[in-house]
Amino acid sequence: MGAGHPSQADCRRGVRAVLDGLPAGSLVLAAVSGGTDSLALAGALAAEGAAHDVTVGAIVVDHGLQEESADTAVLAAQQCADLGLAPVAVVQAVITSSGDGLEADAREARYTALAETAAAMGEEHPAHVVLLGHTRDDQAEQVLLGLARGSGARSLAGMADLVVRAGTPFVRPLLHLPRTTTEKACAAWGLVAWEDPMNSDRAYARVRVRQALAALEADLGPGLAEALARSADLLRDDADLLDDLAEQAVPDDDPAGIPVTDLADLAPALRSRVWRRLLVAAGAPAGALGAAHVAACDRLVTDWHGQGALHLPGDLRVRRADHRVHIGRAPGGQ
Amino acid sequence: MGAGHPSQADCRRGVRAVLDGLPAGSLVLAAVSGGTDSLALAGALAAEGAAHDVTVGAIVVDHGLQEESADTAVLAAQQCADLGLAPVAVVQAVITSSGDGLEADAREARYTALAETAAAMGEEHPAHVVLLGHTRDDQAEQVLLGLARGSGARSLAGMADLVVRAGTPFVRPLLHLPRTTTEKACAAWGLVAWEDPMNSDRAYARVRVRQALAALEADLGPGLAEALARSADLLRDDADLLDDLAEQAVPDDDPAGIPVTDLADLAPALRSRVWRRLLVAAGAPAGALGAAHVAACDRLVTDWHGQGALHLPGDLRVRRADHRVHIGRAPGGQ
Repeated sequence: MGAGHPSQADCRRGVRAVLDGLPAGSLVLAAVSGGTDSLALAGALAAEGAAHDVTVGAIVVDHGLQEESADTAVLAAQQCADLGLAPVAVVQAVITSSGDGLEADAREARYTALAETAAAMGEEHPAHVVLLGHTRDDQAEQVLLGLARGSGARSLAGMADLVVRAGTPFVRPLLHLPRTTTEKACAAWGLVAWEDPMNSDRAYARVRVRQALAALEADLGPGLAEALARSADLLRDDADLLDDLAEQAVPDDDPAGIPVTDLADLAPALRSRVWRRLLVAAGAPAGALGAAHVAACDRLVTDWHGQGALHLPGDLRVRRADHRVHIGRAPGGQ
Repeated sequence: MGAGHPSQADCRRGVRAVLDGLPAGSLVLAAVSGGTDSLALAGALAAEGAAHDVTVGAIVVDHGLQEESADTAVLAAQQCADLGLAPVAVVQAVITSSGDGLEADAREARYTALAETAAAMGEEHPAHVVLLGHTRDDQAEQVLLGLARGSGARSLAGMADLVVRAGTPFVRPLLHLPRTTTEKACAAWGLVAWEDPMNSDRAYARVRVRQALAALEADLGPGLAEALARSADLLRDDADLLDDLAEQAVPDDDPAGIPVTDLADLAPALRSRVWRRLLVAAGAPAGALGAAHVAACDRLVTDWHGQGALHLPGDLRVRRADHRVHIGRAPGGQ
């Protein structure tokens, strides 16, 4: 294979950095939806695989969300095989409703299907890893979505280069490349990407964010996606450290309640994180716990004027008495 | 005075919280540009002043940026006096160019003029404080501006409720109110706001951000400004703690250079902040120091492969030798 288009070289460089760090004989699987980003990822993996002592394959996930999704999956799998990837698996992602919305449920189902399939396929290999095709534009959209929710550093920090789910490492080798690069690379490899109709349906927050980002770049100048991704990188470092510190600062579980001073002495950035950990440990569903809930709890410590008990998601009751904070199930709650 | 419009009550509540915390006889001055936000602030201060043992006045700043600015200042001062504020001072802000752009220079000149004038006016009083009319919308714009620059938590954290400059405390009692509230309050008090022509000149980043924010709200739903302000509050707590920790983590100044391990052992979130402090202490202008400069320095520690010396703003040279980092003036630099 010749030097190829610069966009192909960019995609390959990201994949190469991952392959360089793997033990010989590892199984590396591209997660492929059939869209531009994941097909470019498959192309890069096939090209780099030849120069490494690893097995390179793909998992095509079929959500079954559109009527033609099975055809899409077959076409994507065929293109992966034509690139030289083997094995190629096509799996169904079974979406179960969690109440967090279709987008979140579909994402959860995709990760579960990928992790389980990769673990099964990788049994005979010393290591296995799944590559995801997210780009810098996805990262920027993620940051904007977090902002629109009014979230803290962890949520604004976007996606990490590496996460491990159910024992399977997921790596994002294209996370610092713009989507225009994967588009050019796809064209250069002669890959035919599928246009997800969900990508233009403004019923989805993700689609509205994508369009808003394009409009924002027009207002604020080019480089906005890059700037958002850079902010995300910085905030991810912050969130990692603050989460570590908060973990160490969580007071011991005391049946007599938590002394108010244990909380009052913490810096506000740690106190809000410690509150969140205490509430989740007591049974509050993390997704239902908003900044306003945490702030109300915090006022029991920072702005005490005899407030009554707080009722929080998960049937939790939080109250202060005798210089102690008590977190427990509400009487009559399940 | 009757109960008034709810918007007036909202503005007064913010101002009241400030006045409640001041010693008797304090001088409280509204910083007035003649625009909607600062006139509503003046109205709220006049209304609340009557119920507090404080002197309430105003400082009108004339930038001299537009031909009619002197007229604008006189009209604003007259309205402040009609509200019952006394003393009312009109001061010129002398803009000196720092190379950071007209907006930054004008802001710097405004704060300097306000701090100096307030300190002089407050000499006979036990305490003095300047109120600024920034709203939640200003805060949201500030966050978006920081994002467009790809900045870290401190920059995304926006404006604080309270800052002290040159010995003068500046407080923002309207920071959690939307601009629509100050508009309604102005109308209810019968105040005539001046429309700054700079507010519709897209040559200014601030104006483009304002328009982008409006478009973004249309895409992502109402409540975006509130969400951005909430994110800013959370990130401000984070930045406060991380800055404190970084301050404590700065290695001692050693003429033999800083041992690499002193830096390598720090969490990434602290290391980037420590680098910034070391570079600024060595003479790098803070405003000229970008994330890319800090990242390049960091690679001397985290990704050492014999790189040459780095040349940074302020004629700084940073290099690594013998397991130590050396930061100094470049030979031939001034």
